[in-house]
Amino acid sequence: MLAPELRKSNNKDSGVSPVERLLALVSADMRATDALIHERLGSTVNLIPDLARHLIDSGGKRLRPLLTLAAAHMAGYEGSGHIRLAASVEFIHTATLLHDDVVDASSLRRGKVSANIVWGNKPSVLVGDYLFSRAFQLMVETGELAVLDILAGASAVIAEGEVMQLKSTNNLATTEEHYLRVVSAKTATLFAAAAEAGAVLASRSADYIAAMRRYGDNLGIAFQLVDDALDYSGRQALMGKSVGDDFREGKVTLPVIIAYVRADDTARRFWNRSIETGPQGESDLDRAITLVEETGAISETMARARSYANQARQALSAVAPSETRDVLADIADFCVERAY
Amino acid sequence: MLAPELRKSNNKDSGVSPVERLLALVSADMRATDALIHERLGSTVNLIPDLARHLIDSGGKRLRPLLTLAAAHMAGYEGSGHIRLAASVEFIHTATLLHDDVVDASSLRRGKVSANIVWGNKPSVLVGDYLFSRAFQLMVETGELAVLDILAGASAVIAEGEVMQLKSTNNLATTEEHYLRVVSAKTATLFAAAAEAGAVLASRSADYIAAMRRYGDNLGIAFQLVDDALDYSGRQALMGKSVGDDFREGKVTLPVIIAYVRADDTARRFWNRSIETGPQGESDLDRAITLVEETGAISETMARARSYANQARQALSAVAPSETRDVLADIADFCVERAY
Repeated sequence: MLAPELRKSNNKDSGVSPVERLLALVSADMRATDALIHERLGSTVNLIPDLARHLIDSGGKRLRPLLTLAAAHMAGYEGSGHIRLAASVEFIHTATLLHDDVVDASSLRRGKVSANIVWGNKPSVLVGDYLFSRAFQLMVETGELAVLDILAGASAVIAEGEVMQLKSTNNLATTEEHYLRVVSAKTATLFAAAAEAGAVLASRSADYIAAMRRYGDNLGIAFQLVDDALDYSGRQALMGKSVGDDFREGKVTLPVIIAYVRADDTARRFWNRSIETGPQGESDLDRAITLVEETGAISETMARARSYANQARQALSAVAPSETRDVLADIADFCVERAY
Repeated sequence: MLAPELRKSNNKDSGVSPVERLLALVSADMRATDALIHERLGSTVNLIPDLARHLIDSGGKRLRPLLTLAAAHMAGYEGSGHIRLAASVEFIHTATLLHDDVVDASSLRRGKVSANIVWGNKPSVLVGDYLFSRAFQLMVETGELAVLDILAGASAVIAEGEVMQLKSTNNLATTEEHYLRVVSAKTATLFAAAAEAGAVLASRSADYIAAMRRYGDNLGIAFQLVDDALDYSGRQALMGKSVGDDFREGKVTLPVIIAYVRADDTARRFWNRSIETGPQGESDLDRAITLVEETGAISETMARARSYANQARQALSAVAPSETRDVLADIADFCVERAY
């Protein structure tokens, strides 16, 4: 039933990533989640499933629903609500991506032309709303108000994070503190809710639930910090992967904040022009990559990410040992190591 | 406690509109709902309450939350969940207006410059998402999954209706059937859900609940038909109220569908240019108003509206007589009469 590369081994050193190992542990659940996702994005209004599938089938890692399934699995949950919950987490994530791409006027998502470019902003906004509504319908079907409470609260915080991020765009006065608040709200909140809600479904103790939330929260921050570092990675550029999205959009992420603080006058003038006033020239991204590397901003960002990943691993010490727990801990490390 | 004009009389012929009479019947509840709305749109991210208040305090009639309060009141509900439910209905309505104005690139809403013009599209999309999330949080607090189910389902249908409407924009091949499906989905669904959920909260019988839903549904369709007729009202234009929004946005509403079917060749060419291909000239709106009036498209649209209003009134016959029931029935008539 599993893809050959997932059957190879559960061993950490086998070359199989811990995400694949986790996927193998909950593979039947993940297939059921995928089937439910495709069932529920359906509508008699054809544009809706067409647009939604464009993004949902574009090779996302399903990391957030995977966290929900793993949390429910590890907590010994025996019902079927975790499938609905996982699908609903992916719908919320997809809805925020659709709205993000409109807000950022992005043209690429997961290496494909983004939905807002193919169909326009209007359907992207509305299909996001549709998926968001479907997410809440799925949660209602679990019959668990506590789960609805967590995800409704998380959705509000995500929107707050996105609004906060608008303020830091094209703004080099953005502080590390503001940046971390944005990351925590817009990214870590859904990781935390995804992990927490899985444990809530299994009616675990408050301590257990808090530990899963802490795990998801720290994992989410580490994940975003690494993403933000990779966006300035010369190595990633050489591998043909997309870099420079944040730079082009004038987003002030931690690598830029650190590089700007450490910049000399010439470099400051470069950052002011390229991030704040414009225009950007063709060679600007190369220069930005050189500056964030030379000032140590990338290694500093990665060191912070590693510290959050360690906290994610530590949070799991409140949970009884199990294969799933070990793999979740390895995912925290992997989320940082993927950058090297 | 009541505003003087609301204390005057509950009599139909007193010049006090039935909406004001209904407001008087649930005035304490409405004040509580307003207070809750203002409490819950708060956020430490100041832009969110600033933008949300711009729309929420702009003199909307609060018709949808009023329906929820009236339905709960009439059904004999004695808890406090109806206040949360009414606030949540208004949040969903506000979120859809914010997203609508982005989708339609509108510049005016309730006679004020719209939020997307003041703050831009990005915050409008995100604050819409925020209010939508807050709506679900409020519903969770009622502890009633049935209510969450109704409103989550309604939100999905509203989004479907908005996507369907995109297809009819700038498209004179739009059929009456398509138009009515759009109106039913994008407008009537929330009226129906608002009325239904109030009765559900009071644990009334399936027949009672279905009657309230039917009332809201028919009222919502009548309401939208009249709105679409008023957008081509020469009399309304003379009174200094906004007309021609749909025309300028190329929306193909029932007055246009009927006028186009009844048009001679010259008029058809006018409609093709002004709605489908552009450009629109300065005198085009005057000509459009003349054409919809001369072809009888306005009176035909109003006749349809009256028929839906009658069905709304009829739906209430399944409900025991009460002052609230009478006022709700009068509101159905008033919703059509306001056009004269």
